[in-house]
This record gives sequence, structure tokens and C-alpha cells, in this order.
Amino acid sequence: MTTTEFQVTGMTCGHCEAAVREEVGQVAGVESLEVSAATGRLVVTSSAPVDDAAVVAAVDEAGYVAARA
Amino acid sequence: MTTTEFQVTGMTCGHCEAAVREEVGQVAGVESLEVSAATGRLVVTSSAPVDDAAVVAAVDEAGYVAARA
Repeated sequence: MTTTEFQVTGMTCGHCEAAVREEVGQVAGVESLEVSAATGRLVVTSSAPVDDAAVVAAVDEAGYVAARA
Repeated sequence: MTTTEFQVTGMTCGHCEAAVREEVGQVAGVESLEVSAATGRLVVTSSAPVDDAAVVAAVDEAGYVAARA
């Protein structure tokens, strides 16, 4: 298992976290994830190293901006 | 048509507005509504005077606190 950390800006509440969770959870190889609106921290656990661009695109799809931390 | 205004606290984003819209839209007699996370203003338009308690309960169901303004 690999964990990869991203910083997400723009999330304000639990609904935002849920939107990010739903999109990032669909990225290939993602096994689980933790996301916090309070800190903007997104930690992705994957079976193999995750495609950073795919995670950033998924967060964008949810309506927020992510960068590899 | 009657318009009734409420002040809602706790909304932070468009997801929050959508949650309030969904619950309050189900209150008997409600024809339309406007809700803003930025101002906390909720304006309910109804065919007959709306039951304030029902609106407050619907907002509570969505996870926020409303008071008749």
C-alpha cells in the first residue's frame, strides 16, 4: 500500500468532503482515502502508486483545487 | 402568494444551500424558495402562509438552524 498526500483548497464543510470522497474514490487503484475540510488534507491509500494527475482531476471534478503535498 | 423570511446559520457552501433547498422544498404549501449560504437568508414563497415550525424543522433536518426573520 502507498499513501499519497494532497492539499485541497476550497472545501468548507462535510458536504464538500463527501463530494471529494466520491470523485477520488473512483480513481484507479485507490483503496481508501481520508479528507478534511478543516485542514484541506487529502490522504489517498492505493495498492500501487496513484496517478497524481488523476487525483487532481477527480478533485477538480468535485469542484475544488488539489496539489500534491 | 406569501413570502416568509428566515435566517439560517451554519451554511457554508452551495452543497449546504442544496441540502436546505431539498428539505424545505418538501414542506406543505411551499411553491419556491431562495437560499443563500453567504447571507444565511432563506425566503420561502408559498400559496398560503407557511407553517414556520415546519420550515424550521425542515432546515434542522438538513443540518442547520433557522429562525423566522
